[in-house]
Amino acid sequence: MDEVLADPIDKFISLYQRDHGFNYTLEQMHGKEFGELLPEELLPSLRVYLNQKGFFRDLKVIPGAIETVEKLCEKYEVFIVSAATEFPLSLEDKQAWLADHFPFISWTNIIFCGYKIVDVDIMIDDRARNFNPKIGRHLLFTSPHNVGLTEYERVNNWAEVAEKLL
Amino acid sequence: MDEVLADPIDKFISLYQRDHGFNYTLEQMHGKEFGELLPEELLPSLRVYLNQKGFFRDLKVIPGAIETVEKLCEKYEVFIVSAATEFPLSLEDKQAWLADHFPFISWTNIIFCGYKIVDVDIMIDDRARNFNPKIGRHLLFTSPHNVGLTEYERVNNWAEVAEKLL
Repeated sequence: MDEVLADPIDKFISLYQRDHGFNYTLEQMHGKEFGELLPEELLPSLRVYLNQKGFFRDLKVIPGAIETVEKLCEKYEVFIVSAATEFPLSLEDKQAWLADHFPFISWTNIIFCGYKIVDVDIMIDDRARNFNPKIGRHLLFTSPHNVGLTEYERVNNWAEVAEKLL
Repeated sequence: MDEVLADPIDKFISLYQRDHGFNYTLEQMHGKEFGELLPEELLPSLRVYLNQKGFFRDLKVIPGAIETVEKLCEKYEVFIVSAATEFPLSLEDKQAWLADHFPFISWTNIIFCGYKIVDVDIMIDDRARNFNPKIGRHLLFTSPHNVGLTEYERVNNWAEVAEKLL
């Protein structure tokens, strides 16, 4: 979900602007995790935000996600698989967010987990650590933190997912 | 989780006793779903209970589950896979319940889902519909609703799981 369907980075930028006066830009994140931008003493605040009820409830949708996922559902059996159990208070927010923006995804096809031990044919993810050799095809969805990785089939946006899979 | 690690039937019996004066027993459920015991006009109340925040928070633990799962964790990589997204308000209760009773299960190994499309070698479940031919071994955990099924390897309790897997 995060950085593929939903945009937590945009929210981090807003929160650190509001609470600490920083004016981070997406460009500064090139090749980095958001946490790497922060002064060391503020690093723990990142997890405080992520553990707050509501953090995941109002994230912006990544452009093109809704339209493309809806079309993918006509051709494939689509599951949303989100590493969410690390932040237990994200679970209900994430499911409510999906119901708002992706109402065509049934509860039967939503998976909140830690390790993504799913039996699927194609996986779209921004984290290469979620890929596993048993999955036939991996599409690495571009996010600032993964731009340096060259060994994966990459999709830069949802239009490219549509080109490849539709 | 439900009817394997946690006991929702015991809670249903208490709630229908408290709210409707019924004295259902586990014996009456033999071969049936709990809902089949209810007069038809009360059937919708079952989902009302399941959708209430807190329903899953204080369920009793199925006897022997904690001890055996803890031992299984020494020999296997154990994942808890719960069909939970049908009742979104169960998610945080279920994770908090697991943290209380199964603190040795990391968030990385908890999966809340609809369809259980997991890539595992052995599955212990009370619902045969969750079994899939790609999984090497299925153990049907006895619950009143499944006593009539004869085509699966069955475990009647956690002592039998321990005998078979430890």
